[in-house]
Amino acid sequence: MKKFINSVDELVQDSIAGLVTAHEDLLSLNETPLFVCRRTPKQSRVALVSGGGSGHEPLHAGYVGFGMLDAACPGEVFTAPTPDQIVAAAERVEAGQGVLMIVKNYAGDSSSFQVASEMLELECATVLVNDDVAVEHSTHTTGRRGVAGTLIVEKMIGAAAEAGANLYECKSLGGRVNANTASMGVALTSCTVPEADAPTFAIDAGEMEVGVGIHGEPGRYRRPLMPADDIVALLLEPILKDLGLAAGSAVLLHVNGFGGTPLIELNLLNGIATRRLRAQGLQVKRWLVGNHTTSLEMAGASLTLTALDDELTALWDATVTTPSLRW
Amino acid sequence: MKKFINSVDELVQDSIAGLVTAHEDLLSLNETPLFVCRRTPKQSRVALVSGGGSGHEPLHAGYVGFGMLDAACPGEVFTAPTPDQIVAAAERVEAGQGVLMIVKNYAGDSSSFQVASEMLELECATVLVNDDVAVEHSTHTTGRRGVAGTLIVEKMIGAAAEAGANLYECKSLGGRVNANTASMGVALTSCTVPEADAPTFAIDAGEMEVGVGIHGEPGRYRRPLMPADDIVALLLEPILKDLGLAAGSAVLLHVNGFGGTPLIELNLLNGIATRRLRAQGLQVKRWLVGNHTTSLEMAGASLTLTALDDELTALWDATVTTPSLRW
Repeated sequence: MKKFINSVDELVQDSIAGLVTAHEDLLSLNETPLFVCRRTPKQSRVALVSGGGSGHEPLHAGYVGFGMLDAACPGEVFTAPTPDQIVAAAERVEAGQGVLMIVKNYAGDSSSFQVASEMLELECATVLVNDDVAVEHSTHTTGRRGVAGTLIVEKMIGAAAEAGANLYECKSLGGRVNANTASMGVALTSCTVPEADAPTFAIDAGEMEVGVGIHGEPGRYRRPLMPADDIVALLLEPILKDLGLAAGSAVLLHVNGFGGTPLIELNLLNGIATRRLRAQGLQVKRWLVGNHTTSLEMAGASLTLTALDDELTALWDATVTTPSLRW
Repeated sequence: MKKFINSVDELVQDSIAGLVTAHEDLLSLNETPLFVCRRTPKQSRVALVSGGGSGHEPLHAGYVGFGMLDAACPGEVFTAPTPDQIVAAAERVEAGQGVLMIVKNYAGDSSSFQVASEMLELECATVLVNDDVAVEHSTHTTGRRGVAGTLIVEKMIGAAAEAGANLYECKSLGGRVNANTASMGVALTSCTVPEADAPTFAIDAGEMEVGVGIHGEPGRYRRPLMPADDIVALLLEPILKDLGLAAGSAVLLHVNGFGGTPLIELNLLNGIATRRLRAQGLQVKRWLVGNHTTSLEMAGASLTLTALDDELTALWDATVTTPSLRW
């Protein structure tokens, strides 16, 4: 796999530095240990810290800024950040109202954030995101994986924290958004981690991996490639089964690309998914379409639905100023 | 090449419909002939119309909105829009101050916009963008190609038109931004047009195409893949030669992905390019990093520099509210 890279050892550090360079008005970089935080700290508010393996850009560092995260801790590619990164980031951004950690449900991430919260002499709480309905347990998790729904949790808690919600309220909201959110993805190609000689998994020219994880880990099954219409139906079925929405329910639809799928295809998927959801009596009220929670250069996409009420809609609509989400 | 697609014939129409669905607050869709325009028309201002072949998303429809384009006309994949699309779009968005057409320099696009402007009974002018320094003439052009610098031209003219500049001033500004802008790209993989059985060009596992066009057309030469540092140097050299900037000049740096290159790599390129430009005595003052002017799922990237003065910086910084550029 051909990549733009100098050295595997410096990829993450250099890429994060390049991100901060392009957004020096919004972000500050801490090189050792590595984290990104807001340039202008929040005052007297709950501080939100997230992080996880690199290779999922713009998640999480691309969502640091007003109305979303206070800090993000990037691990090596597909590797959890270390507790010392999280401790240093939390100590930097804590503003007198405690620290909420937003963690995707993977064994490595959970463990690092857990250790960090025990090391910190600060009031801490954690929201665990596990929106992936593809598998009940996986190679990297006990329980469901956290995938593209994570940014929705981060956006909504971010808006609440900015408006002055306390630590308990932010944690409770995060649990509610996570429970209202379900995702499922499909891969057309594998990805290749920079230090590996070969793709993470092998997939035939005419096949797709249904329910794939964001590290290329196995999903539910292989199937011959289908028309986009049928793929959307295949992804929506388990999502809707999981959420069990009443007719007329309002939803946010997030069409996420895995890094190697261009916008022309994601926009197509969005049109199809919106039509299908409306035909099933749901009100699609908000959309997010793009490569947001990626798996390096994997071709593929996931669909995420979040059930909306007036409160969650207002939190989604609230002003956000980050490198990769801005309105 | 595996793609999310239903049918080749309906790809462009369905993808554009999916874009408009996700941005119904900003955009209106005209199905026949196909164009996208602002939902809320501009009043008493110069109307800006662009367009070109599909496969370069988000260019151009993703840049329709406040502070940028009034309408965009998508052709079939890598095929110019037809004059009737352009005529219909121009008639819809004209607001008493004439129409400025922003056109990438390709034979098909130039011809369609030229025919349309002759058919229109409106005051019309054209800005031709030809920022690609890779080749002096190409398979699809007489003269240099228009590539990723196009969105910079669209953004700056968009801000000026919004502020009330007249048709002559907008055209003159467009010429100045184009003259101040230079781009050069490199491809690591080919792209595959949806109706084709095979990639547009063949490229070996260890090779890159230096100076590639955004339709996969040939560039300057093939070379074995190099470290990112050396690739950046290779791209910047002809750009800087073309612009001939004095030491201390201020520039905007746009790192553009071709669709299949993930953000982790584009951020890396941005850090390297910024360091190199600063080492050469230039002031990098503004940045745009992302997959903006794409070639379907091609892996690769281009660098674009625009020489800035106070006027151009203010036009770049002005508020913009479009699906893919927003601040």
